[in-house]
Amino acid sequence: MYGVILAGGSGTRFWPTSREKSPKQLQNIVGTGTMLQNTVQRLLPLISIENLYLATNHQQVIETLRQLDYYGFSPDHLIAEPCNRNTALAIGVMSKVIINNDPDAVIAIFPADHVVTNSKNFIKILRKAETLAQKGYLVTLGIPPTRPDTGFGYLQQGSEIEDGTYKVEQFAEKPDLPKAKQYLQHGKYFWNSGIFVWKASTILEELQNYAKNIYSQLDAIASSTQNAKGRYAYLELNETGNKIFSSLPSLSIDYAVMENSSRVVLLPADIGWNDVGTWSSLDDVSKKDPEGNVINGNVLAQDCNNSIIQGQKRLIAVLGLKDTIVVDSPDALLVCTKERSQEVKDLVESLNKNDHPEGKQSTFVNKPWGSYTILDSGPSHVLKRIEVLPGEALSLQSHQHRSEHWTIVSGIAEVTRDNETFQLRSTNCVTIPKNTKHRLENSGSELLIVIEIQFGYLLDENDISRYEDRYDRI
Amino acid sequence: MYGVILAGGSGTRFWPTSREKSPKQLQNIVGTGTMLQNTVQRLLPLISIENLYLATNHQQVIETLRQLDYYGFSPDHLIAEPCNRNTALAIGVMSKVIINNDPDAVIAIFPADHVVTNSKNFIKILRKAETLAQKGYLVTLGIPPTRPDTGFGYLQQGSEIEDGTYKVEQFAEKPDLPKAKQYLQHGKYFWNSGIFVWKASTILEELQNYAKNIYSQLDAIASSTQNAKGRYAYLELNETGNKIFSSLPSLSIDYAVMENSSRVVLLPADIGWNDVGTWSSLDDVSKKDPEGNVINGNVLAQDCNNSIIQGQKRLIAVLGLKDTIVVDSPDALLVCTKERSQEVKDLVESLNKNDHPEGKQSTFVNKPWGSYTILDSGPSHVLKRIEVLPGEALSLQSHQHRSEHWTIVSGIAEVTRDNETFQLRSTNCVTIPKNTKHRLENSGSELLIVIEIQFGYLLDENDISRYEDRYDRI
Repeated sequence: MYGVILAGGSGTRFWPTSREKSPKQLQNIVGTGTMLQNTVQRLLPLISIENLYLATNHQQVIETLRQLDYYGFSPDHLIAEPCNRNTALAIGVMSKVIINNDPDAVIAIFPADHVVTNSKNFIKILRKAETLAQKGYLVTLGIPPTRPDTGFGYLQQGSEIEDGTYKVEQFAEKPDLPKAKQYLQHGKYFWNSGIFVWKASTILEELQNYAKNIYSQLDAIASSTQNAKGRYAYLELNETGNKIFSSLPSLSIDYAVMENSSRVVLLPADIGWNDVGTWSSLDDVSKKDPEGNVINGNVLAQDCNNSIIQGQKRLIAVLGLKDTIVVDSPDALLVCTKERSQEVKDLVESLNKNDHPEGKQSTFVNKPWGSYTILDSGPSHVLKRIEVLPGEALSLQSHQHRSEHWTIVSGIAEVTRDNETFQLRSTNCVTIPKNTKHRLENSGSELLIVIEIQFGYLLDENDISRYEDRYDRI
Repeated sequence: MYGVILAGGSGTRFWPTSREKSPKQLQNIVGTGTMLQNTVQRLLPLISIENLYLATNHQQVIETLRQLDYYGFSPDHLIAEPCNRNTALAIGVMSKVIINNDPDAVIAIFPADHVVTNSKNFIKILRKAETLAQKGYLVTLGIPPTRPDTGFGYLQQGSEIEDGTYKVEQFAEKPDLPKAKQYLQHGKYFWNSGIFVWKASTILEELQNYAKNIYSQLDAIASSTQNAKGRYAYLELNETGNKIFSSLPSLSIDYAVMENSSRVVLLPADIGWNDVGTWSSLDDVSKKDPEGNVINGNVLAQDCNNSIIQGQKRLIAVLGLKDTIVVDSPDALLVCTKERSQEVKDLVESLNKNDHPEGKQSTFVNKPWGSYTILDSGPSHVLKRIEVLPGEALSLQSHQHRSEHWTIVSGIAEVTRDNETFQLRSTNCVTIPKNTKHRLENSGSELLIVIEIQFGYLLDENDISRYEDRYDRI
């Protein structure tokens, strides 16, 4: 069996931990590795890493690959989409890529940012789904609801096809609360988990039947894939492929195929599934203290109940809170009530509308070569802590409007400045004047930590000319 | 009339804005200057700055003087107490110092950290109190209670002595709630404001009558005062004076004199007084938005009611809060309910017990020469932003266990290193090796901002040998 992980989410509901540039699936929300890592880990007993594929957007590629490096995930099994066109197109392209190598492939589709607590049952059900898929069914996993949730679509169970497998009587939109209560009581409604299993050939046939405009371009897109230049040879589309991809409609696979096809079957899956859609949902998937609090980080809590406190390095002291959510990050803080946690999304929209950069990005920024953190800034300076991973290097670059002063804190830096190249170690420093070509590389085997002070009156990340780059960012 | 401001408070109830090393009176809690500055400002229509005196502890001296510099406050009117011995001794010493210059002095005593919103009435009542003091009374200002507060001592009004002036029937301890309600209903109970007016000679006589052990040492202590060496010539006690001061009992003036003396009179004072004792009390003294919130700083609030949100530079997003307090600072965050704000004090005690340094001090530290902020730290480095005020200088010093690397961000630095002295400007840098005598001075007219990186494996503020210091800290 093949696995396809759809990892393009934006995760505004987990602000300020997740941002547009560092979405939920790449974050350690539940406390045991990132959501994406957990998703992969959970599949490995059934699907070998060689059979795993992943689709995400360009911005997330390097961090995604870095998180999966440990598992031996092959970079050319990742497709970087030029833009978000929802699940139908992503699934279509992936199916085409896989079927070109294996005409009989059975594919299971997984969102990257869900939690499954009953892994054993999960694997058992996927095995059953594989057998059903072999018979030509489009298998959708339905989760027995545990509460009248208004945040999911529902699948109504129809007649039994074979042992424990059902037709889908109806795909029901997200209900209002009375309806959700009815569904729960009725007993034959299931949450639509977004986990599907089918033969590549089956889903492609059904795309051809019900989403011709998408299907007709899949060959062109799949054959336009090429290995990205630079250090990480993931798959991207060439210019033609990007154009076609972007021109196609943004449709969910449910809307494009599942609601129309007669081959759909429902497999009830009691697997401890949770989509971890809001901060409140940590209640269902995290360890709690005796007072019902979910607490992480440097926190002192007195007389708090049923609250979610997510701290980091900074001390958080909380007193007398009830059903309250506190999430801290270096540059932004969220405090809200649990019942309003659905609205964090709107709050982030507000931030974006009001030009608060914190809505989209953090002062901590992942880069292909490591990361940087903005520690201080003023009218004519920006202070950064730069971390370069062993063997990695920033691009050979220059800046028009700023000089830079680097002091090495730890590790070994290989510095290129104009025509010189030299090594610096802890306590050494160097100044890079404006308009001077330079490069910072970690030539040691430990993390390289550098304090950078930028001087100038136009300090902007976009003031950069790149001459050479290992990550193909020129 | 003379004024004496008692400014020795520790302000743990306004954590994390106030810390042991930067107490409430030195903070801008209400949003219009620091509590101390507001206290002085309020007195100036009645008491000239030449007649103002102040007692505080050694740690707060420089910051106190700096805050009062604008008003022309004379440093030798400040007495630095070697330790806290409550109000009876502080008032005794101050009275002795003042009477030595002016045998007929009338003195008004003011806590440094209260709010008075009706300044006009305040001045009017102080004038009346002055007249009463001239007649030999010990005048205490009683505040008509507006709620059954259990946090104050109460004064019970006795028979009328003259127009609007009363004997005190009883000094009542802090009551429980039922009693506080009775007091409020009764109508003849007033809050004990801690504001007193009397002749220096009267209070000294009564100290002699009722607190002999204190009174008997006042001459010795007052004559032990000397100007501090260094840049700020405030008054401190010599070694003998310090010894005597420290050996005396810690008594409030209420306990030592007011509860015993027959010369005490109560002057009801409807002056919009508030002791601003907890974060909740900002409700009474601050401007609110239409939803009843008191909001300062970089805050986005959605659907919040009657909440107090005190931010700084960092973004705070709050959603759906009610009667909640959020106070942010660079290294610590407080979130609590309004009804629990009395307990912030206990919370700080907990922090101190559990060796959280944030209970006592902040990453922002005031110094005689300016301030520093810790921006980053690791196993072998500490990163600081240092601000040196124009004309000020750090001590000539050396460190055993660390080297320092300075980069000038803005302003002009005069750097002494061993036997050299040289000027550095923005973008310049210098390294100070271990065991090297060095000094950093702001020789320009603008603020000097320096980024310092300390390197070493024993990074401790106490690793300092001072050879010369303008602020007499050797």
